[in-house]
Amino acid sequence: MNGYDERISVLREVMRQKHVDYYVIPTADDHASEYVGEYYKVRNHYAGFTGSAGTLVIGRQTAGLWTDGRYFIQAQEQLKGSSVRLFSMGQEGIPAVAEYIERHMPEGGTLAYDGRMVDRAWGAQMEKRLAKKHARIQWEEDLAGNLWKDRPILTSRPVYELPLSLCGKSRRDKLEELREKMTEEDQDQVLLSSLDDIAWLLNLRGDDVEHTPVFLAFLLIDRKQAGLYAFKEAFSDEVQTALERDGIYLKPYDQIYEDVKKLEEITLLLDSRRTNDALYRCIGKNVRVVSKDVSRFIPKAVKNTTEIDNLKRIHIQDGVAVTKFIYWLKSRVGKERITEASAADHLEELRKQIAGYKDLSFDTISAYGANAAMMHYSADPGNCAELKPEGMLLVDSGGQYEEGTTDITRTIVLGKISDGIKKHYTLTVKSMLNLASARFLYGCTGYTLDILARGPLWDIGVDYRCGTGHGVGYLLSVHEGPNAFRWKQNPEQEAAVLEAGMVTTDEPGVYVEGSHGIRIENELLCCKGEKNEYGQFMHFQILTYVPIDLDGVDIQWLAPEDIRRLNAYHQSVYETLAPFMTEDERKWLKNATRPL
Amino acid sequence: MNGYDERISVLREVMRQKHVDYYVIPTADDHASEYVGEYYKVRNHYAGFTGSAGTLVIGRQTAGLWTDGRYFIQAQEQLKGSSVRLFSMGQEGIPAVAEYIERHMPEGGTLAYDGRMVDRAWGAQMEKRLAKKHARIQWEEDLAGNLWKDRPILTSRPVYELPLSLCGKSRRDKLEELREKMTEEDQDQVLLSSLDDIAWLLNLRGDDVEHTPVFLAFLLIDRKQAGLYAFKEAFSDEVQTALERDGIYLKPYDQIYEDVKKLEEITLLLDSRRTNDALYRCIGKNVRVVSKDVSRFIPKAVKNTTEIDNLKRIHIQDGVAVTKFIYWLKSRVGKERITEASAADHLEELRKQIAGYKDLSFDTISAYGANAAMMHYSADPGNCAELKPEGMLLVDSGGQYEEGTTDITRTIVLGKISDGIKKHYTLTVKSMLNLASARFLYGCTGYTLDILARGPLWDIGVDYRCGTGHGVGYLLSVHEGPNAFRWKQNPEQEAAVLEAGMVTTDEPGVYVEGSHGIRIENELLCCKGEKNEYGQFMHFQILTYVPIDLDGVDIQWLAPEDIRRLNAYHQSVYETLAPFMTEDERKWLKNATRPL
Repeated sequence: MNGYDERISVLREVMRQKHVDYYVIPTADDHASEYVGEYYKVRNHYAGFTGSAGTLVIGRQTAGLWTDGRYFIQAQEQLKGSSVRLFSMGQEGIPAVAEYIERHMPEGGTLAYDGRMVDRAWGAQMEKRLAKKHARIQWEEDLAGNLWKDRPILTSRPVYELPLSLCGKSRRDKLEELREKMTEEDQDQVLLSSLDDIAWLLNLRGDDVEHTPVFLAFLLIDRKQAGLYAFKEAFSDEVQTALERDGIYLKPYDQIYEDVKKLEEITLLLDSRRTNDALYRCIGKNVRVVSKDVSRFIPKAVKNTTEIDNLKRIHIQDGVAVTKFIYWLKSRVGKERITEASAADHLEELRKQIAGYKDLSFDTISAYGANAAMMHYSADPGNCAELKPEGMLLVDSGGQYEEGTTDITRTIVLGKISDGIKKHYTLTVKSMLNLASARFLYGCTGYTLDILARGPLWDIGVDYRCGTGHGVGYLLSVHEGPNAFRWKQNPEQEAAVLEAGMVTTDEPGVYVEGSHGIRIENELLCCKGEKNEYGQFMHFQILTYVPIDLDGVDIQWLAPEDIRRLNAYHQSVYETLAPFMTEDERKWLKNATRPL
Repeated sequence: MNGYDERISVLREVMRQKHVDYYVIPTADDHASEYVGEYYKVRNHYAGFTGSAGTLVIGRQTAGLWTDGRYFIQAQEQLKGSSVRLFSMGQEGIPAVAEYIERHMPEGGTLAYDGRMVDRAWGAQMEKRLAKKHARIQWEEDLAGNLWKDRPILTSRPVYELPLSLCGKSRRDKLEELREKMTEEDQDQVLLSSLDDIAWLLNLRGDDVEHTPVFLAFLLIDRKQAGLYAFKEAFSDEVQTALERDGIYLKPYDQIYEDVKKLEEITLLLDSRRTNDALYRCIGKNVRVVSKDVSRFIPKAVKNTTEIDNLKRIHIQDGVAVTKFIYWLKSRVGKERITEASAADHLEELRKQIAGYKDLSFDTISAYGANAAMMHYSADPGNCAELKPEGMLLVDSGGQYEEGTTDITRTIVLGKISDGIKKHYTLTVKSMLNLASARFLYGCTGYTLDILARGPLWDIGVDYRCGTGHGVGYLLSVHEGPNAFRWKQNPEQEAAVLEAGMVTTDEPGVYVEGSHGIRIENELLCCKGEKNEYGQFMHFQILTYVPIDLDGVDIQWLAPEDIRRLNAYHQSVYETLAPFMTEDERKWLKNATRPL
């Protein structure tokens, strides 16, 4: 029995005492966040799996870990020697967690989880599924967390204000607009749990989650004032006074669970996919809860003109860093020792020199050769590939700056690559540019447009098993809804209409296991175009300025229109970046952006 | 006061007696059909408007007619001198019927309609909307129809069987498969009201609706047998005996309303958008009604191999007729008198010569010059445009044959057209071929693919204000769900995944009011392609073989790939049709399909 299995066996003892048949440990915090702080990594503690997404289900005899395609290989490695079985999500014949529990739950049995770590939509689903088996749910206790000795403490780093020059709209105005919509839709109060929504609305930022400048809090807003449930020590007197001036009063973080119990006879808006199950269950019985996507109330996805101007500026600086990195890499590879990890470090150093730099926006993906076939490969600094003057390095990275968040991928050709790989490379470029060049009527969603990127690869019988792109926050999460480019309809996820001011990534790719991985990613700003008798036409403006490696491009796979687009993009890249380059870099850039 | 207003005034008298504030007369029958027989044209009787779609709302003082973009101009003409106001649906600021009634209904008022003429989904919507005003609904009486003197009688033309060589699967097998799905989904009974579903399931056809070979009936199916509520006189003894052999028993048409009252303690599946409100309200109170799209239970949209083989054959014959028509038209125009209507007649004559011809599949749209800007223009034989050797004629037409239903549009160039029109013409061709050439993963819907047709026109700031294409029945309705190509999401209409065997039209167009209209329409058969690690790839096969008029094509608007596609299509058109042509026609066809 390894150390992790021992911990599971201690937990099973408690499960037996409490008559629990299955215990679920997801990867989450009280706020249904995508990334979580150390305090919340209970699942890692029991399974030894360190991926950013995964759910551990512990039964009386068996245990399973569910994770997605990004982590199959890593999870396989980390579960070696463990009794925990890997369930590869989305693979044929693999049941979803909820389905598995429903199937294996004994009649009249008990499911338990820490209700704060599970979103209400999932909790409601389990309630429905288990009703058929007359099983009950215990959500009140953190059984697994309570057994964790030396558990890290909940961090609460200082919270700071964003000046108007960075956020473009005052907290007071944002709250006023929110309250107008509450009036329109007859909502007495709004309960926000998602950390990025709260940070955006209040023009505050923190540092409680790695790579995402948010702080732990709940916000309960009524027509007049708001309660901010957070760690008092994170707020300076100055910030606190400023908040109170705007009718926002600090309360102890945990008090939200008590305060929602006292609500009575009101309508309360929340998003059950972002509200934890425990909190939902605490809400007073006479409250009329309306659950829906709150993006109409918290329109953070639609960037204002200040944010857009800042984003344009910071993308140029970010592009300068990445372009200097590519120049450095292409001229040094084979001459000195560079690994996947040291390359990522060098890029980080370049970003750190940019004014207003705060953090990376996520852990850099630096994947050489066949490693790049894993979309979310994570290089272990102590044991990762050394780069040689052959093949390709895929680098997906971004920064958190005062002027916004960036996300970019380039696949850099380090030496000879085969004609087949060049074909994949070229069609990926074509796909990215084809979507970026779309003109469309207002009302389109990412579903309408996705095939513009995917089509050129589908034409040769190739697909990438992920969305084409995601929304990006403004000095917030690098993954932000509700805008996205996808082709698969998901009834639980509304298709958001693309609004002027939304920023979405455009990142098609080709991933061939054991061989190579290619991804080219630009960020697109949605803009208004001509309005005529047919409606309001829309288009995109590319925010990202970094050359696309022409060493990967084989012109025979491009139509004249594709070549025109690539040349136009490269011309704008050169004109934008040249002023920031050294003489040598500029000479190289001129050639790297030459017209085909 | 004109004659129609007098009828309305008589109806208002009855409304007053019955305390009705608003009376609604839709265009429908008991079966929520798209096209209806003469008996059902109550709305025409009161408003004098003859379009195929429209809803008349009569209040105590005011009256309004709602119709869609196809009929704005016609309705304007036909309502001249009437007190009925035209509401142009979908135009800015024009409320929907339901919205209008909700807004104007007095507190505690009464809405009335003939519940058999309104689908349940709409009835339920009104119930919800009017609840706020404490208004009630009277649905039991056909107030308007009862006042109609000389109302035509309900027709019941003979019903006939389709042999296996035409329909490809026995009624017994279809019923067995349906019952398997009922078992899977725990449905005790299924209630079908839609005439094409019933005709398809029973392999029967009739002639009660113009251009659609269906018969008036309801079908109530349980796990063992089925009741067919229809007009007995339409069924020969032979057909009746054959039905009884398969456990299907004829019952009087109207008896369905009584029989559903007697249902108890069962689950009943129906589609509330295809079931009339009166019938729904009659269903026994202890019945658990499940309303959903029944296309999984009645998979008529997925054609079987017999149907596909027949369709391929009949499309060639239909294409021969249309191609001979185009040859005739282009060589005769300017030399003899041809009008929009006489051209349509000539085409109909050519179709009648095809073995197995039964009817047109809809009234031919034959629209010359600016008339073609009206998508659903209807030429009045006594007063329509004469064709001259200039401009273009748009002809949208189709036939009902034993071997299937066709639908095709060609826009035929009769003489000089401007460069601007050629640009529109060429991009319409490009759009049609771009969608027809799609390769895509299984799971795509018409929403995913629509932009392939619309994109080339959006690129120049032009749109067509309708879907790109619709499903086509097999010797059934020329408009059939659930497959379609559209870009606008409609929450009430599920996006159907494109299955192998589905037939969908591909008909982009350009419509410029007062100037010109262009539409090019082929039918596409969805087929399976390669299956690999990414999934099952799909593509289309074009069923329609008729040349596209190269006189309208300006090569400068085509990419090399577009030219390759057009040439390949034309080559297949020539090879397929040439054997059926006279010497002169063949010579012309050779040139009409020449490679660019």
